[in-house]
Amino acid sequence: MQGAAKGTFSLLLQAAARGRIYLSVLPCARSMSSSEMLIPAPAVLMQPLSVPERLMLGPGPSNTPPRIQAAGALQLIGHMHPEMFQIMDEIKLGIQYAFQTRNKLTLAISGSGHCAMEAALFNTVEHGEVVLIAVNGVWGERASDISERIGADVRRLEKPSGESYTLKDVEKGLAEHKPCLFFITHGESSSGVAQPLDGLGDLCHKYNCLLLVDSVASLGGVPIFMDQQGIDILYTGSQKVLNVPPGTAPISFSERARKKIFSRKTKPPSLYVDMGWLANYWGCDDKPRVYHHTGPVTNFFSLREGLAMLVEQSLEKSWQLHKDNALYLHQGLEKLGIKLFVKDQAVRLPTVTTISVPEGYDWMEITSYIMKKHSIEITGGLGPSTGKVLRIGLMGYNSTRANVDRVLHALKDALQHCHKNKI
Amino acid sequence: MQGAAKGTFSLLLQAAARGRIYLSVLPCARSMSSSEMLIPAPAVLMQPLSVPERLMLGPGPSNTPPRIQAAGALQLIGHMHPEMFQIMDEIKLGIQYAFQTRNKLTLAISGSGHCAMEAALFNTVEHGEVVLIAVNGVWGERASDISERIGADVRRLEKPSGESYTLKDVEKGLAEHKPCLFFITHGESSSGVAQPLDGLGDLCHKYNCLLLVDSVASLGGVPIFMDQQGIDILYTGSQKVLNVPPGTAPISFSERARKKIFSRKTKPPSLYVDMGWLANYWGCDDKPRVYHHTGPVTNFFSLREGLAMLVEQSLEKSWQLHKDNALYLHQGLEKLGIKLFVKDQAVRLPTVTTISVPEGYDWMEITSYIMKKHSIEITGGLGPSTGKVLRIGLMGYNSTRANVDRVLHALKDALQHCHKNKI
Repeated sequence: MQGAAKGTFSLLLQAAARGRIYLSVLPCARSMSSSEMLIPAPAVLMQPLSVPERLMLGPGPSNTPPRIQAAGALQLIGHMHPEMFQIMDEIKLGIQYAFQTRNKLTLAISGSGHCAMEAALFNTVEHGEVVLIAVNGVWGERASDISERIGADVRRLEKPSGESYTLKDVEKGLAEHKPCLFFITHGESSSGVAQPLDGLGDLCHKYNCLLLVDSVASLGGVPIFMDQQGIDILYTGSQKVLNVPPGTAPISFSERARKKIFSRKTKPPSLYVDMGWLANYWGCDDKPRVYHHTGPVTNFFSLREGLAMLVEQSLEKSWQLHKDNALYLHQGLEKLGIKLFVKDQAVRLPTVTTISVPEGYDWMEITSYIMKKHSIEITGGLGPSTGKVLRIGLMGYNSTRANVDRVLHALKDALQHCHKNKI
Repeated sequence: MQGAAKGTFSLLLQAAARGRIYLSVLPCARSMSSSEMLIPAPAVLMQPLSVPERLMLGPGPSNTPPRIQAAGALQLIGHMHPEMFQIMDEIKLGIQYAFQTRNKLTLAISGSGHCAMEAALFNTVEHGEVVLIAVNGVWGERASDISERIGADVRRLEKPSGESYTLKDVEKGLAEHKPCLFFITHGESSSGVAQPLDGLGDLCHKYNCLLLVDSVASLGGVPIFMDQQGIDILYTGSQKVLNVPPGTAPISFSERARKKIFSRKTKPPSLYVDMGWLANYWGCDDKPRVYHHTGPVTNFFSLREGLAMLVEQSLEKSWQLHKDNALYLHQGLEKLGIKLFVKDQAVRLPTVTTISVPEGYDWMEITSYIMKKHSIEITGGLGPSTGKVLRIGLMGYNSTRANVDRVLHALKDALQHCHKNKI
């Protein structure tokens, strides 16, 4: 188009950008040369970004403290600069501390906790191998799904949502199915259960099986000792107790797991999470680092800061804080006549508390009311616990008595204002 | 441990934290109960985070402008909040504009460009299907690797690094191999080639084949018209022309690609990038959104801002700017007696310029000198171009005449000070 035609087209584009006309007014694609614009600029992107302030007391993401927010605003450096490798080395040390492990193969996945779950299964399991998955909530379901996709022979150990596994339960499963890998969730955030881990490692190793533990919702808030407890693969997410924006997921592999990975017959299905490549990128293999993918530089800055804050506070203090504030919340809930969903006090997860939806109430009306009137997020259930529970998270920076008081006040208000027996 | 023993242990831990003793001094794991700390706090995480300021004129990541840095420091909201869905909808509109497409199945992957490459191949290709990969640099090699991992029958169309494909080359390959998908790189950042795309879509469709284009290093800097050019799958990265921190990757699928995805016989190997789940999470399927994974909330804020800045500038102006500044750079390089690596002027990539390593110089000495003396990143080659080229990136916010002057000045200085004929 030249001259007048071009001028008319520009006017149309400008009008479309202001939202005054619809796309169908524009000339159709087939009659245009490839130097002409077809899709106009969306008007909504001419408006400023709008993000409300919220107190995030759901199962994650949690709020980020100012120090971590500041890290998110730093200028970028290159993913292969020596200063970046130094920061990645610091992240590794921080993960080794948080996981209580000396594993050399320790790093952060460039994705969410689900990406780390895939990294764990993709690297350690080959087509046709038997895996045993403990299912008592949504995370076991997801681990089963992923294992099936890669052609594993998936066996399930099932329990109702809200219950945990005994060593006897697990031993029965191991003896029956003889899996190469056993998956269990430490912090079952959909049900609010903290699975006891002592003894599971020895049991799995007795049956020549790797122990894979999901600690996305528990790490930093509940004691875990990767080496002492004989955990072979452990991963977590950044956006829970660490208070780091979602997008990275710490993971570590024992020597036993490393050996299985590096003696595979086939390549893992994914290049992106291939532990051969990632071990090199993270300096875990003593070879010069070569380019694999462009790591999320800013997220690594934030993760480094989240781990540094945990180090400064100390694991012991963090565990104690989560325990104390969860107890304070539980007492307050009971005073309001609200029932805790997990019956066995010993296995209640201190980072995410589940309560039974109060009788006669619509759970969604409660969460919406609290969001609208108090700018606080608490959430409903997930997977098998949907419709049964409400979930309140107290994680890292958010685990304070003041926040417990705020959420109890909001809940009390919601119970008074939401319509009992409406449904 | 109790009393004195516990006190001694604490002192040891403190000493280890200060880096005064080595881990081997600490009691061994087997003699301890699980309530005791084994791995001490790493001293280096007690130090402040240190990130140098750099002008990033390599092939990416590029520098982030203040508006995008500010988005990185915003407080988090939930990945399932309505305000987040609004921002995701805005991102979709921004991608549709940047890609020049009306495709409904348009979204951002929660990972790097490589993760998007996997998402494209994992969803559209099934085990045993024939794919044809155009290899003229590192990206074709990676696409071949990923395709092999998922059991595709991989055929390759090879060209030396620095060359592009003609329609005749491609038609010969399509006729011979009859693939279900053809992969080609638009911005071959390892060689500096901008692959012409006109006519490729029609050609692929004539052979009943999907056209997959990698535009990680070119999108926003080189004209591309997804719908008009008949591209079936197109993806890019956030950290190039968009100047957004790495960690998200825009992707879009044509109706033809969508149909192939949703008539698969088997599930894609990955749940994390399963387009059935992601289509729902991104509101592309008209069903109520359900939880899939926790998206990288902060990265989405930044991506929204990067797309908004492109919208404000307009694609036409962005393309012109990249073209003008690249030409200005090329002229300056020639004045310094430096040879451009890509012989054919018509296919030189304006976002990443490759130059032949000046005769008698060690490329690594040049990049190190420029980094050390001028705080500017330029890089060596990648994959097949390693040792042959130096790469200078001018992307988005970084594509300015002032930056061209800075890098030319730095290069001139390096050529005077680095040791010619040392190697």
